[in-house]
Amino acid sequence: MIVRNQWYVAAYGREITHDLFSRTICGESILFWRTEAGAVTAMADRCVHRRFPLSQAPTRLVGDQVVCGYHGFTYGADGACVAVPGQTRVPRTARLRSYPVVEQDSFVWVFIGDPDLAGGVRIPRAPWLDSPGWTAVSGMEPLAARAGLLVDNLLDLSHETYLHGGYIGTPEVAGTPITTEVDDEAGIVYVSRHMDDAECPPFYSRSTGLSGRISRWQDIEYTPPCLYLLHSRIAPVGSQPNPDGTDPDAFHVEVVYAITPETETSTHDFWAVARDFALDDEEVSAFLAEQNRTVVLQDVEALDVLEQVIASEPAGYQELSINIDTGGLAARRMLARLASSTAVRV
Amino acid sequence: MIVRNQWYVAAYGREITHDLFSRTICGESILFWRTEAGAVTAMADRCVHRRFPLSQAPTRLVGDQVVCGYHGFTYGADGACVAVPGQTRVPRTARLRSYPVVEQDSFVWVFIGDPDLAGGVRIPRAPWLDSPGWTAVSGMEPLAARAGLLVDNLLDLSHETYLHGGYIGTPEVAGTPITTEVDDEAGIVYVSRHMDDAECPPFYSRSTGLSGRISRWQDIEYTPPCLYLLHSRIAPVGSQPNPDGTDPDAFHVEVVYAITPETETSTHDFWAVARDFALDDEEVSAFLAEQNRTVVLQDVEALDVLEQVIASEPAGYQELSINIDTGGLAARRMLARLASSTAVRV
Amino acid sequence: MIVRNQWYVAAYGREITHDLFSRTICGESILFWRTEAGAVTAMADRCVHRRFPLSQAPTRLVGDQVVCGYHGFTYGADGACVAVPGQTRVPRTARLRSYPVVEQDSFVWVFIGDPDLAGGVRIPRAPWLDSPGWTAVSGMEPLAARAGLLVDNLLDLSHETYLHGGYIGTPEVAGTPITTEVDDEAGIVYVSRHMDDAECPPFYSRSTGLSGRISRWQDIEYTPPCLYLLHSRIAPVGSQPNPDGTDPDAFHVEVVYAITPETETSTHDFWAVARDFALDDEEVSAFLAEQNRTVVLQDVEALDVLEQVIASEPAGYQELSINIDTGGLAARRMLARLASSTAVRV
Repeated sequence: MIVRNQWYVAAYGREITHDLFSRTICGESILFWRTEAGAVTAMADRCVHRRFPLSQAPTRLVGDQVVCGYHGFTYGADGACVAVPGQTRVPRTARLRSYPVVEQDSFVWVFIGDPDLAGGVRIPRAPWLDSPGWTAVSGMEPLAARAGLLVDNLLDLSHETYLHGGYIGTPEVAGTPITTEVDDEAGIVYVSRHMDDAECPPFYSRSTGLSGRISRWQDIEYTPPCLYLLHSRIAPVGSQPNPDGTDPDAFHVEVVYAITPETETSTHDFWAVARDFALDDEEVSAFLAEQNRTVVLQDVEALDVLEQVIASEPAGYQELSINIDTGGLAARRMLARLASSTAVRV
Repeated sequence: MIVRNQWYVAAYGREITHDLFSRTICGESILFWRTEAGAVTAMADRCVHRRFPLSQAPTRLVGDQVVCGYHGFTYGADGACVAVPGQTRVPRTARLRSYPVVEQDSFVWVFIGDPDLAGGVRIPRAPWLDSPGWTAVSGMEPLAARAGLLVDNLLDLSHETYLHGGYIGTPEVAGTPITTEVDDEAGIVYVSRHMDDAECPPFYSRSTGLSGRISRWQDIEYTPPCLYLLHSRIAPVGSQPNPDGTDPDAFHVEVVYAITPETETSTHDFWAVARDFALDDEEVSAFLAEQNRTVVLQDVEALDVLEQVIASEPAGYQELSINIDTGGLAARRMLARLASSTAVRV
Repeated sequence: MIVRNQWYVAAYGREITHDLFSRTICGESILFWRTEAGAVTAMADRCVHRRFPLSQAPTRLVGDQVVCGYHGFTYGADGACVAVPGQTRVPRTARLRSYPVVEQDSFVWVFIGDPDLAGGVRIPRAPWLDSPGWTAVSGMEPLAARAGLLVDNLLDLSHETYLHGGYIGTPEVAGTPITTEVDDEAGIVYVSRHMDDAECPPFYSRSTGLSGRISRWQDIEYTPPCLYLLHSRIAPVGSQPNPDGTDPDAFHVEVVYAITPETETSTHDFWAVARDFALDDEEVSAFLAEQNRTVVLQDVEALDVLEQVIASEPAGYQELSINIDTGGLAARRMLARLASSTAVRV
């Protein structure tokens, strides 16, 4: 179940240069490149003539035009065909489908669905990835599992204790109850777990320098379908933010996931970790990048297995849900509603 | 066509230790482990919560409890859930499906189907695999072909002459007619071929020390769906068993196959060779193990090819059968009857 | 869409020796071998008994008889079974389907469909592959794409400029308009492109010794479904054939493709290049063989990608066609007509 008429993260801005780049988003193979003026373009990665993928050599970029490597059909940055072989007249309908694109918060967002609706759909923000006062590390791992499995995973962090023990998991995560809140109007699911006296996992002890027990808050803010934020606060036990919102004794980490379906059963798992401390410490950056990638790969391994389980199980299999699942179940409901409202609209 | 409500060999007893072990039997992924008291347990290899396979790390056994590696759901040896994360109450329905298990004749048998019917279905015996006076070697080879192809193969040993020439095949096997007998009440198919003056293949000459021509009897006893016995008697030409059943001049080999469907189109091919001579001769054991494994792998290669042929052929293809096929055809009829009676019963 | 009741190239004559050889043609697995007298036989590659592929070891040829490696069913060169195991009577219906075969122009042609119709269907000729006055190099590359994609490719040579630039493509190929002619009665599509003042690509400059600009004619003659000829004339600019048909100043190259479906989505891509110059020059032979194989592999890579694009695209995708496609579209129409007339006839 892929929700259309939505913005999705297609790439990091740094991935798109003056070179042909292709990625499949929601089942659509899309060609990206950056014009000589620096704008990101997005168009169908398939020549209108005989389907040749334009990301495929010997297709090449000549200035701001793409020349198909099969028969030479040539397209401008807006997707319009400007030249064909063997004749001077270019058919009026020779045009690649182009996609609305926005570059923001280090991401390239693309709108999947009816482009006329793009303006009316909000792009959620992750400003910490590209703001003064914050340092971020990031990456993307391919996931051979449906996006819904990653949503389940991220909305229920009790799994940190088991799947990520020794990295970010401690007994308190699974042991501490959560509160869940759903803002249907804004289209956001909130899940909070505040551990006031918890073990400090290596992920945070080595990056913050804190030792001993800590206060650890996990405040999840998920905007279906694509953007997941984990506002993480680590502080000495007993420390609280000030009434004016300042919080000088705490360390803040913003963990960001962009969950982009590649196909019905595979996903681009974009992850980023931003922090408001040790801003110029390369060693901390390298440590957090390596640790978070390891954690993401533990999830990837588990979710790839779950996708295989689903593929081989009889239809109608029923899961059992408990309190820790309230966030994930709320997210599923919101995704189902978005999917059905799209179905009606189209 | 998999016959349910039947006992199948899932493993050798030696394969199941105090460690998580998974095998797919008749399309069902089953978790096996041995309790600290030594009993074999069998339960569904899938957490009731979010489907995580319990055989998958970091799931682990703690005493006689399985702790799921995803969110920590914890199960006892009977499959009942005893702990879940984030709450003290365990839902009543949180229980893994458990399977009837019997350990016998070196095999772990598991009942596939309605567990209430297990007591009424006979488990066929292969006592030579675990009896004084006998020495056995055994193994299991994965077969990428439906179980029925292995049944066909084993019920018609004329193929030894061609597919296993130089190992266990000689011209007399294909050349000697068979007798077939079907005991519908007991659910057994018998096929016999008595060669009274035959070449001695290396399999028997090197293990028995006989040279020159031999009397070679092949008495098949197949109890569908799972257990196949080949009672093999090798003796000097002219030698007969005594009227009282003793047979001092002959060498007896019991070849046992357990034919367990993994899926509709793949099979666990358990094989064992027991003998009543050279009981402590390690060299004979090693020779018979290596030879029989080679023969099994010749079958595996041929049957894997046949499965591919079936996969690519148009529906309704018709085989041609002759006298040598009477045993195989009887086995097919018995399997079809078992399958349909199951279908009615459920 | 595979057209049946047609002759297809199954192999080069040199591929068929007194040894078992199998190739799948139009979805049918066919066994070929040459009798001791030198005739090519073609029969179903599947034993009538239990489906064993006769091309599979330990099946073997004994004189002019095939002995199945599974149970020893034995077949003569006409496909009739002459011996079975365990009994002397051979069932009357024990016979492999045999295929009409013609060896001609270095190819082994096989008739796919109703054998009674074979005599009424013309086998197109490619005499240059096996004639005095001509020297040919040839090969076959497996294509993981439907035959229709190769037909499209070969009927529209404008792609040489882009996909084969630096080998056989120059700007004039894509730049010069074509003329297309369809002979419905003979069942032939003609496409011509005469470039009277063109760059000489390496393929022709190194083989002919011509330098500077040339006259280059491409005259395509495609007889659906299987045989494609490219009559290629390379000459100094301004040179014309004489009124009597002689053409002493020109170099003639006959490029031959046999397009044989393996399955609905894979193809045997037979290619040959015959020339009427440098007949004994091994270096020219080696150069043309290597160059043409490289060009074929460039096509294979592109068409394999297109097959994947088709496999993943939604149903009903529409291509855009222009003037260069008139030959390919005519070929598609003729193939569709052949397919539907076959469908009616059967």
